Amino acid sequence: MLKNVIVGQSGGPTAVINSSLAGVFRTALDLGASKVYGMRHGIQGFLEKNIVDMKEKVRSDLDLELLKRTPSAFLGSCRYKLPEISDDKAIYDKIFEILKEYEIDAFFYIGGNDSMDTIKKLSDYAILMNSPIRFMGVPKTIDNDLAVTDHTPGYGSAAKYIASITKEVIRDGLVYDIKSVTVIEIMGRNAGWLTGAAALATCEDCEGVDMICLPELPFDVDAFIEKTAELLKKKNSIVIAVSEGIRTAEGKYVFELTNHTEYVDSFGHKQLSGTARYLATLVSEKLGCKSRSIELSTLQRCAGHLTSRVDITEAYQVGGSAVKAASEGETGKMVILKRVSSDPYICTTDLYDVHKIANIEKKVPLEWITENGTNVSQELVNYIRPLIQAELTPVMITGQPRHIVIDRT
Amino acid sequence: MLKNVIVGQSGGPTAVINSSLAGVFRTALDLGASKVYGMRHGIQGFLEKNIVDMKEKVRSDLDLELLKRTPSAFLGSCRYKLPEISDDKAIYDKIFEILKEYEIDAFFYIGGNDSMDTIKKLSDYAILMNSPIRFMGVPKTIDNDLAVTDHTPGYGSAAKYIASITKEVIRDGLVYDIKSVTVIEIMGRNAGWLTGAAALATCEDCEGVDMICLPELPFDVDAFIEKTAELLKKKNSIVIAVSEGIRTAEGKYVFELTNHTEYVDSFGHKQLSGTARYLATLVSEKLGCKSRSIELSTLQRCAGHLTSRVDITEAYQVGGSAVKAASEGETGKMVILKRVSSDPYICTTDLYDVHKIANIEKKVPLEWITENGTNVSQELVNYIRPLIQAELTPVMITGQPRHIVIDRT
Repeated sequence: MLKNVIVGQSGGPTAVINSSLAGVFRTALDLGASKVYGMRHGIQGFLEKNIVDMKEKVRSDLDLELLKRTPSAFLGSCRYKLPEISDDKAIYDKIFEILKEYEIDAFFYIGGNDSMDTIKKLSDYAILMNSPIRFMGVPKTIDNDLAVTDHTPGYGSAAKYIASITKEVIRDGLVYDIKSVTVIEIMGRNAGWLTGAAALATCEDCEGVDMICLPELPFDVDAFIEKTAELLKKKNSIVIAVSEGIRTAEGKYVFELTNHTEYVDSFGHKQLSGTARYLATLVSEKLGCKSRSIELSTLQRCAGHLTSRVDITEAYQVGGSAVKAASEGETGKMVILKRVSSDPYICTTDLYDVHKIANIEKKVPLEWITENGTNVSQELVNYIRPLIQAELTPVMITGQPRHIVIDRT
Repeated sequence: MLKNVIVGQSGGPTAVINSSLAGVFRTALDLGASKVYGMRHGIQGFLEKNIVDMKEKVRSDLDLELLKRTPSAFLGSCRYKLPEISDDKAIYDKIFEILKEYEIDAFFYIGGNDSMDTIKKLSDYAILMNSPIRFMGVPKTIDNDLAVTDHTPGYGSAAKYIASITKEVIRDGLVYDIKSVTVIEIMGRNAGWLTGAAALATCEDCEGVDMICLPELPFDVDAFIEKTAELLKKKNSIVIAVSEGIRTAEGKYVFELTNHTEYVDSFGHKQLSGTARYLATLVSEKLGCKSRSIELSTLQRCAGHLTSRVDITEAYQVGGSAVKAASEGETGKMVILKRVSSDPYICTTDLYDVHKIANIEKKVPLEWITENGTNVSQELVNYIRPLIQAELTPVMITGQPRHIVIDRT
């Protein structure tokens, strides 16, 4: 039995992160929670007691449906990593004081690697302090790089977006009867899960992309140009998907090979973009061929207008499962997705010790990368395909997807 | 009464260009045409007799529905401008020979400015030669820059895509509790119709963009930075929509202010992109603020997964109207859209002399650009809003939009 619970969202937005929030909210109420609090901007807002009563923000079943269909963290997010307990005990005392003040007995954090680190530390501290408060992690990341779980909510919709857009870009490239090369840049600093999704463009009605380069293997610029030249001998329109994070054997990012001014993104990370632009320019220079580059950019993580119903449903389920587990006394765990079978696709949830998940990055298995790092295997396609299935239509108002916003009157 | 007709597509793809093709095809059959021929890659393919029988390519009602929902020219496109008749009579003789060979009595060309120039020249030549063959233009361009017609098919879907994506990008920017500036780059070399559509992001659930810069007015870099600094004083997340074609008072493209390597796109045009990237970098440098740039790029014209039903319906209607007009003996005309009223939205088709349309570029009226060129008026929003209404759901197969392709077995 739960009394009051609190939920937060952290890290990069996804198209379905709010479906997990809806799952936590609804399940907590169903299990008898009096209050479901939401922290604004994750643990950072929590420390400033920037806390809302979810029932005041999500007021009806229609609101709940809108929440499931609204991309990008409803409660706001943060990128904030808690210090080691031994380094700064004071901050933990403060957190537990606030939890006590709000009479909270379960804390849910929807996020990726860094967020699971938060759950790990807080649940450790609870054990240290003999506190009965439960801490549960709810997985979320478009990057699909969390350990143990079969996949992460958020990934399926991003993969669906990438697969669908790539099909459209391939079509667009086919209309002219001339030689051209299109390089699509896809997110993924170290893991190629998202870029690999470009392989799903291959269907009965689409030849698919001609090359896929993941960051798991070193990228050879000369081999890339050579292979592109070969491809151009066989067909007119070449489309190549590359990960923003591809690096040369020397460990240099490909975008660093350019002379372009570097700049940092909203989070102080060096902007990776520029990889596709560099390669497209190089193709033009070396092969005298028309080229263009397309960065899928932020849209991969915020395209609420094209989500996977499987993904949005699973996002809801992992939220609900976290609450159910906490109500049964579990703590220090993350909900994981366990694939029972791919065809037919059957997937259940389970719990796993967050200590064995936090801070570990799951990459694409090397045996799923083929042709000297220029393509991916059918295994990867079979793995991804079920995750992009079916749609959840956005609520369209006056021609645009409607979202729910937290600050309404 | 029509015997055989031929139809072609030319210029840049749109999400609904095939709906016009469907309208021509179906209406021609309904009006008793024996053969509906399609030219591959426009007039360029026609000159090589690269001609298909549409009935062999679109074989069922389901095919026709798929065609309406398939983005980017089904028949392929070209960028080919016919020479003046006085400069090269031979090419016209060749065209008319082929038309005679296929016993064609009406020729339909779906395209923008350059395509209307083709219709103008061919219909002029028919008059010169006393040929009874009719030549009709079917308007198409995401740029909405064709004269006389209220708007062009293709624009509504591009505007809907831009308006919806902009809403999602604004939401994405709101999740972090830090100062940041996002610059979105939207297509439009000389006309700001597409960039103006970013204004539609403003809804009950969205504050909208903070600045809109169209190419119709000179762009002042210093004033831009100053205004951005002001905006940042009032709120955290600033989103700015700029046209790729904005120029300084000296006529220099903003993207030319950078040191980036220039490269040409697939059509030999100097790549305009880089405007948003330049401005985002400048914001970071001058204001010490996090920034990012997003290029909507090709997706604006090929996003068949997010189309306007109004647009797709009108695209079909202009195709059908062209055939009907030709069957009644009209030639040398383009079908135009005439708005009867905006609220409720009522629109009809009419015909207009193609001589008065070809090669004229329609820009956004200056009185619809406000605040020293940093915003647009409600009139522009009211003009665009009806054009993005309602959806035509793509046929989704295994999680992705299904298209019809011309080369099937």
